[in-house]
Amino acid sequence: MSASLLSPASIAIIGASKTPGKVGHAILANLVNDGFEGDIIPINPGAGEICGKKCYPSLAEYGSRIELAIIVVPPAAVLQAVRDSIAAGAQAIIVITAGFKEVDTDGAAAEKEIATLCKEHRVRLLGPNCLGAINAHHNMNASFAPHMPPKGGISVISQSGALCTAILDWAASRKLGMSKIISMGNKADLTETDFIEILSADDQTRVIVGYLESIDSGKEFIHAAAAASAKKPLVIFKSGVTSAGGKAASSHTGSLAGADIAYGAAFRRSGVVRADTFEEMFDYAMAFSMQPLPRGDRVAIITNAGGPGIMAADAVELSGMKVSPLEKAHASALRSQLPKAASVSNPIDVLGDADPQRYVQAVEAALDDSSIDALVVILTPQAMTKPAETAMALAHCSHPEKPVLVSFMGGLDVKEARDKLITHSIPDYPSPERAVKALKAMWEYRRWLDRPPRVLTRFPVNRHRVQRIIGRHLRIGQMQLGEAAAKAVLAAYDFKVPKGGLCANRDEAVSLAEEVGYPIAMKIASKDIIHKSDLGGVKLNLSDRQAVMDAYDLMMLRMREKVPGAQIDGVYVEKMCKRGREVILGMTRDPQFGPMLMFGLGGIFVEVMKDVTFNIAPVTYGEAMQMLESTRSFALLKGTRGHAEVDLAAIATALQKISQLVTEFPQIKEMDINPFMVGEVGHGSIAADARITLSKEILK
Amino acid sequence: MSASLLSPASIAIIGASKTPGKVGHAILANLVNDGFEGDIIPINPGAGEICGKKCYPSLAEYGSRIELAIIVVPPAAVLQAVRDSIAAGAQAIIVITAGFKEVDTDGAAAEKEIATLCKEHRVRLLGPNCLGAINAHHNMNASFAPHMPPKGGISVISQSGALCTAILDWAASRKLGMSKIISMGNKADLTETDFIEILSADDQTRVIVGYLESIDSGKEFIHAAAAASAKKPLVIFKSGVTSAGGKAASSHTGSLAGADIAYGAAFRRSGVVRADTFEEMFDYAMAFSMQPLPRGDRVAIITNAGGPGIMAADAVELSGMKVSPLEKAHASALRSQLPKAASVSNPIDVLGDADPQRYVQAVEAALDDSSIDALVVILTPQAMTKPAETAMALAHCSHPEKPVLVSFMGGLDVKEARDKLITHSIPDYPSPERAVKALKAMWEYRRWLDRPPRVLTRFPVNRHRVQRIIGRHLRIGQMQLGEAAAKAVLAAYDFKVPKGGLCANRDEAVSLAEEVGYPIAMKIASKDIIHKSDLGGVKLNLSDRQAVMDAYDLMMLRMREKVPGAQIDGVYVEKMCKRGREVILGMTRDPQFGPMLMFGLGGIFVEVMKDVTFNIAPVTYGEAMQMLESTRSFALLKGTRGHAEVDLAAIATALQKISQLVTEFPQIKEMDINPFMVGEVGHGSIAADARITLSKEILK
Repeated sequence: MSASLLSPASIAIIGASKTPGKVGHAILANLVNDGFEGDIIPINPGAGEICGKKCYPSLAEYGSRIELAIIVVPPAAVLQAVRDSIAAGAQAIIVITAGFKEVDTDGAAAEKEIATLCKEHRVRLLGPNCLGAINAHHNMNASFAPHMPPKGGISVISQSGALCTAILDWAASRKLGMSKIISMGNKADLTETDFIEILSADDQTRVIVGYLESIDSGKEFIHAAAAASAKKPLVIFKSGVTSAGGKAASSHTGSLAGADIAYGAAFRRSGVVRADTFEEMFDYAMAFSMQPLPRGDRVAIITNAGGPGIMAADAVELSGMKVSPLEKAHASALRSQLPKAASVSNPIDVLGDADPQRYVQAVEAALDDSSIDALVVILTPQAMTKPAETAMALAHCSHPEKPVLVSFMGGLDVKEARDKLITHSIPDYPSPERAVKALKAMWEYRRWLDRPPRVLTRFPVNRHRVQRIIGRHLRIGQMQLGEAAAKAVLAAYDFKVPKGGLCANRDEAVSLAEEVGYPIAMKIASKDIIHKSDLGGVKLNLSDRQAVMDAYDLMMLRMREKVPGAQIDGVYVEKMCKRGREVILGMTRDPQFGPMLMFGLGGIFVEVMKDVTFNIAPVTYGEAMQMLESTRSFALLKGTRGHAEVDLAAIATALQKISQLVTEFPQIKEMDINPFMVGEVGHGSIAADARITLSKEILK
Repeated sequence: MSASLLSPASIAIIGASKTPGKVGHAILANLVNDGFEGDIIPINPGAGEICGKKCYPSLAEYGSRIELAIIVVPPAAVLQAVRDSIAAGAQAIIVITAGFKEVDTDGAAAEKEIATLCKEHRVRLLGPNCLGAINAHHNMNASFAPHMPPKGGISVISQSGALCTAILDWAASRKLGMSKIISMGNKADLTETDFIEILSADDQTRVIVGYLESIDSGKEFIHAAAAASAKKPLVIFKSGVTSAGGKAASSHTGSLAGADIAYGAAFRRSGVVRADTFEEMFDYAMAFSMQPLPRGDRVAIITNAGGPGIMAADAVELSGMKVSPLEKAHASALRSQLPKAASVSNPIDVLGDADPQRYVQAVEAALDDSSIDALVVILTPQAMTKPAETAMALAHCSHPEKPVLVSFMGGLDVKEARDKLITHSIPDYPSPERAVKALKAMWEYRRWLDRPPRVLTRFPVNRHRVQRIIGRHLRIGQMQLGEAAAKAVLAAYDFKVPKGGLCANRDEAVSLAEEVGYPIAMKIASKDIIHKSDLGGVKLNLSDRQAVMDAYDLMMLRMREKVPGAQIDGVYVEKMCKRGREVILGMTRDPQFGPMLMFGLGGIFVEVMKDVTFNIAPVTYGEAMQMLESTRSFALLKGTRGHAEVDLAAIATALQKISQLVTEFPQIKEMDINPFMVGEVGHGSIAADARITLSKEILK
């Protein structure tokens, strides 16, 4: 299929036009003028010949089979054009025409009909409402964008056609080589997931760049993106930090998770290099498509001016990478080559009058040096500087494992040099900071590639027990599990919970208290009472029989007064937990990406400082531990003056168990364990309180 | 002076050269070719005429007076050239020659001699080791940079000459107008502070842009920068986040303050618009020099493509500004002008086929709308787009109080349009995000201008008492004040401190405990014992006479065992403070900017999470309150579930009192009040423990 779309032998343009300025003319002209070598068949009832190509009134009149159909007719005529194309043997169809899902519900219905028709005939569909597709390596500009880029290794998929034109125009001005450019339009059939798969298998694509406003199928996206990232970098700029997260949420976890958090977690999981701005998208793509990934984070800076060298050094250190000195031997060898006033410490200052030769000496010294992993080379156009010659000299300096990124600063005087750098695969940036940021993206991707293999733990659990509890609740339509039931679920999944149980009357409460041992906690058991403690429905640290009786009587009195008519099942009595560090573990389901696990330190850290992290279930032990490590308050868990380190492994394992639970039971919509009490290593941990909400639908 | 440097009637070039490529030739050629209209006098013993100007062997031979001398002779000849220039009546001298302070101590000495000589004759000196100076409005290119920029409102001062050339080259490529460009070199005489003053008084300068690696005199800088910022924006990019903060620090405050924190505080105080990268520096300067400041933060986005509109909306919301809808009347009026598929909600989408007229309709609707404060206009080059015509149409859309910032995305197709925008004073950016960031800088500067007047409170204090305490310690060389002395200082500055005092023996301790009332705290008093509590030198909550006696005896026993030989002055006995929220107040002195006040929540927030803020003393009440508000943990002070708001005013006032204390006593090098206990409003606050360190030198 992808061959029929991106490198077909023949293309029919249904709605080809004689009139310059019309889209139906522009596409045909682009195919012809940009050198497409296959058959080009314009279809238009009126025209005889366009751009030197014989025009047929219909596909039926043409008579032969076509491989790709491009449809540019008005919306009402598109369905018939699709039928005709299928009849003519088209394996892929691009619908350029707008006026479908993006306009109204009628448009959406028409779009669906077209997509269904294509699906029935196993014909893949790009669009509708798109700019088309370009394959530079096939000389195919099947779009109405005026610039055919030079051949190169960057492929682009974009949810905005206008952005494609801007990208192509920008790439043309920088002489940047591209491979495929795909405008996805309304994504009626082919989506980002399909193109990520197609481009990851495409040998002419070195890096995939995506501009996305939405993702159509979260799980499939993660799967495809992770598979692609394992082969080549996938740079994504996601716009639209929408308020889709504004759904009603009954748990802490739900109220803290937003749509953008889910996207962030999905991108991290699948190795996506996330660009935060339009410019970063191409800053990163240039670096990835032109240079090898670094093996480490030690950066050498070479400059002909002090100031920009300091800027670069600041940027490297702020990024978390290192400005490392050369080895002594290399430093002194370079010392003997450079003028006295030059500096061979890092930044290496080759001085304002540096000629190309001096740059090469410094660059080669750094490339040869085993204590350097990457180079940032800066040039400012001073009186004696030869930018273009320096660019050409740098073009011969390369290393299979050390990226060289360049910033030739300025405008007119460096224009020719900057073009030369790009055409010789040396990524060049207008400022040192942008070069460093691109290098950082390379280093992070390298670390993702080198991560340990993902091993998911399977804990031995009592799945049947949870099945029964959930089934019982769903049958009577009770979506909120009571404390007893929630703790029973956790106990079945190997969590330690306080000894205790539901007591229907005072005598049972006293008798259970005697059995589990004092001090105990007592909580009202009623699905009608939400804010238990505010209403006097929670009593802690009851230390003897009398206290239990008093608490029971008082609690019933209060509930009768304050929540008359509430259905009360009794009280929940349990042994008080030993003190420990309180953390919150939770899960909410993102509509796109499914179960999102949450971790945060209890109390003010979650409620006031919102210091929480999320990850997509299922998680490995390492991923669970990373969730702990990426909170700002992690240092508190690691132990501080007067406090020992808590049992971090116990928390990470608990997150993995939640991960298994919510993966195995899609009926669980949200859950919190709050607090999960964790002591020092070896002192155990316990789920002190829990809340589980079910859903009637089977969730993803 | 500034006239003699930046718009002299005559310029002598001492060391003018016939040889193209030499600096002494380049400067003369620039002056001649770029149209300097005053007298140009080349001085060189060998040459007869250079660039059509008669060359004199010496200033003495020339005979007439000169106003500005530019010196380009070798380092050893510079001093004599300076002497000659002064003798010839020069009012200002630019020393281009390098080889002074930046090389070695001999160079530093020579530089100092030159600076002193100039000072004696009241002649101002720019350099040495600089690129020179340019005044576009005077047609004076007194530098060896090849590009004379068009006339405009941006003036640049730079500590890096190479950066000046890069800036000029970049400005030339963007046709950006400039006023003065000054390369400061080694700053032997004239520094950033001088030029900020000069340029703030210069009518041809609308915005001052500075690239700085260091600041020579912190206090003067703040004074000059604040005065300049009150008149026009001052954009500074400071590189070199050096490790100057790595000095030994004996207090919390000292260990948390770094050099960059001090620069940040100084910039905020003086209204400086801080650029974090090289590109931001000019992104901001363009906006400030071309457009009015916004009156509010409500931004309208106008675009011909959905994707970039979303990008801009994301950027606006992330920046803290607002994407606001048009008023109903304007929206429906615009609705009737635009095609059906266009959107008049914000972002306003004028559609992919928008012509210049449609852009103008949308822009004028937003400019007329009183619920919009600023506009971001985006164009992508699509099939029907007319970028250059749209640029010209936008050139006629302006408003005295609403900035219009533009992003014409792409490359070749928008090049002409982008040049037109800049020459018509419409700032244009390669991406919507950069336009929004520049707009945010304008909005922040507007808020600085509109801040309430700074009123410093003067508390009635017992200054003599503190004078005596400090004097006594300094006389015996004891730099660390004991707890008793530190609390006496605080009490003299109107702080509430726990009742208590130093007790030389057990009987005194018991008797003082009875007097102040139980429970009491007891702490060992000895300058030789630092970590008191670790060694058993602190006992809290002693609730009766027997407990005080036991604690005293045990403490003495432990100290004899653990710190034999320590000189022990007795114990410090005081009433226990009531519980409250613990915060830390402190002060450390920055070598450049003087006393820096610190605020943070006590315990883990300072020690683990480093959640502290700094400001430069003296502070107003509002500035002190801002320090509180800008910690991440501020919400905890504001009151959370189960906790009332604490007395924020008490904390802010305490910071003001420290501010007054350290301003009045420059002998105080560092201090911490840790903890400062603060209760709910009306419940008072108290300095529970304090540490004050003195210095022999008088500090700034």
